Amino acid sequence: MPHPAFPPAMRKLVNALLKLPSVGERSAIRLAYHLITSSRDDALDLAAAIREARDTIQLCDTCFALTENDRCSMCRDPNRNQALICVVEKPADVIAIERSSNYRGVYHVLHGLWSPLRGVAPGETKLGALFERVRKSHAEREEITVEELVIATSTTVEGDATALYIANSIGELPVRITRIAQGLPKGGELEYADEVTVSHALEGRRRI
Amino acid sequence: MPHPAFPPAMRKLVNALLKLPSVGERSAIRLAYHLITSSRDDALDLAAAIREARDTIQLCDTCFALTENDRCSMCRDPNRNQALICVVEKPADVIAIERSSNYRGVYHVLHGLWSPLRGVAPGETKLGALFERVRKSHAEREEITVEELVIATSTTVEGDATALYIANSIGELPVRITRIAQGLPKGGELEYADEVTVSHALEGRRRI
Repeated sequence: MPHPAFPPAMRKLVNALLKLPSVGERSAIRLAYHLITSSRDDALDLAAAIREARDTIQLCDTCFALTENDRCSMCRDPNRNQALICVVEKPADVIAIERSSNYRGVYHVLHGLWSPLRGVAPGETKLGALFERVRKSHAEREEITVEELVIATSTTVEGDATALYIANSIGELPVRITRIAQGLPKGGELEYADEVTVSHALEGRRRI
Repeated sequence: MPHPAFPPAMRKLVNALLKLPSVGERSAIRLAYHLITSSRDDALDLAAAIREARDTIQLCDTCFALTENDRCSMCRDPNRNQALICVVEKPADVIAIERSSNYRGVYHVLHGLWSPLRGVAPGETKLGALFERVRKSHAEREEITVEELVIATSTTVEGDATALYIANSIGELPVRITRIAQGLPKGGELEYADEVTVSHALEGRRRI
C-alpha cells in the first residue's frame, strides 16, 4: 500500500503496477515515478499499446499461439506440415523455435506445465485441448491426421513431467511422440557441464 | 526488436515496455505476455492509471514533489515550518521521511544528483531552483526566510558530492546547512558494519 503522501493518481498507478509479475513495491514506485516524470509520449504509448494488445490479440483457436485472428498465420500456412505439432509451454517458446528457422510444422502452446508440486492441474493448461486436437484428427479421419508430437517443453522437472504426462495420455494413438534432444549447448565446454547434461549428451550420441 | 512471428500489437507492446527502466527484452516479453493473457481488467486498469497519472500529476511549483495541484499539500500546510527545507533526490525519499513522521518542515526534490562521473550536470536537476528559492527568500525579505537546509541525499559518493556542492554554492547566505546523520542503522551489529559506517558512527557520537 503506497504512502498517503503520494497523490491519489500515483497511488493508483503503483497499485496497478504491483499486479505485474515480479514487481514489488519498490519497483512499482520506481516504474510509476519513471512513467510520470519521463517522456509523456512514451508513457501514453505504453497505455495505448496495452489497450490495443488487449483489444486485438487473442489465442489461436487451434494452437493457442498469440494472434490477431481466430486462427494464427502458422495454422493457416499451407506450406507448413500440419501433421507435425511442436508442443511448447508459452508463446515466447514459439519465437525461440521460429528463430532457429529449421522447423516447418505447427505448434501447440500449453500456457503452463503440469506441476503437481505447485498445484497446477492439467486442466489449467491447454493439455486437454492438445489431446482432443490429436484424437479428433484420428477419429474423424480429417484431412490432416497428426503424425508426430515434438515435445519441446523445458528440460526441467515440470517440463519433463509434462512430456511424460502427454506420452502416457495419448500413447494408445498411432502418433510418434518425440522429445527435443538434451546435450551440450553450442559452445558448451565439457569441463563445465553438469553430470546430467553430460550423461544425456552421451546417451543421445550420433554417428558423424 | 521482438520477432516478426509475434502479432504487431504484441511487438508494439513489447517495444513500449522496453522503454521502462531496467526492463530488457526478456522481461518485456514476459510482461507483455502477462498483460495479454492475465486479467483483462487489471491490464486496462494499468493503461487507465498511466493516462490518469500523466493527466493529473505534476511537480509542485515550489518544492517539485509530485502533486495534483500547482502547489503541493505540504507547501500549502500552515502547520509546517516553511523555513526548514529538507533536500532529497526523488519523490520516494519524501515518503521515506514522512514515514518517520518526526519531520515538520517542507521539502525540495532535486530529481537527480550532481554526478560528474555519469555526466549529470547540476542544470539537469532542480539544484538551480533550490538556490533561487533560498536566495529569493533572503533577498526579497519575503514572509518566510529559509533558515535551514537539511540535506538528506543518499550517503553515496553522488549524494555526498551533491551535499558539498549545495554547501559551497549557498554558503555565503545566513542559512544553516546540515546533513542527515550517518551511523549504525537501527538493529545494526557493530561486528558486521563496514569501516566507514563505524568511523561515522564514532565521529557523530552524542552524550546519552
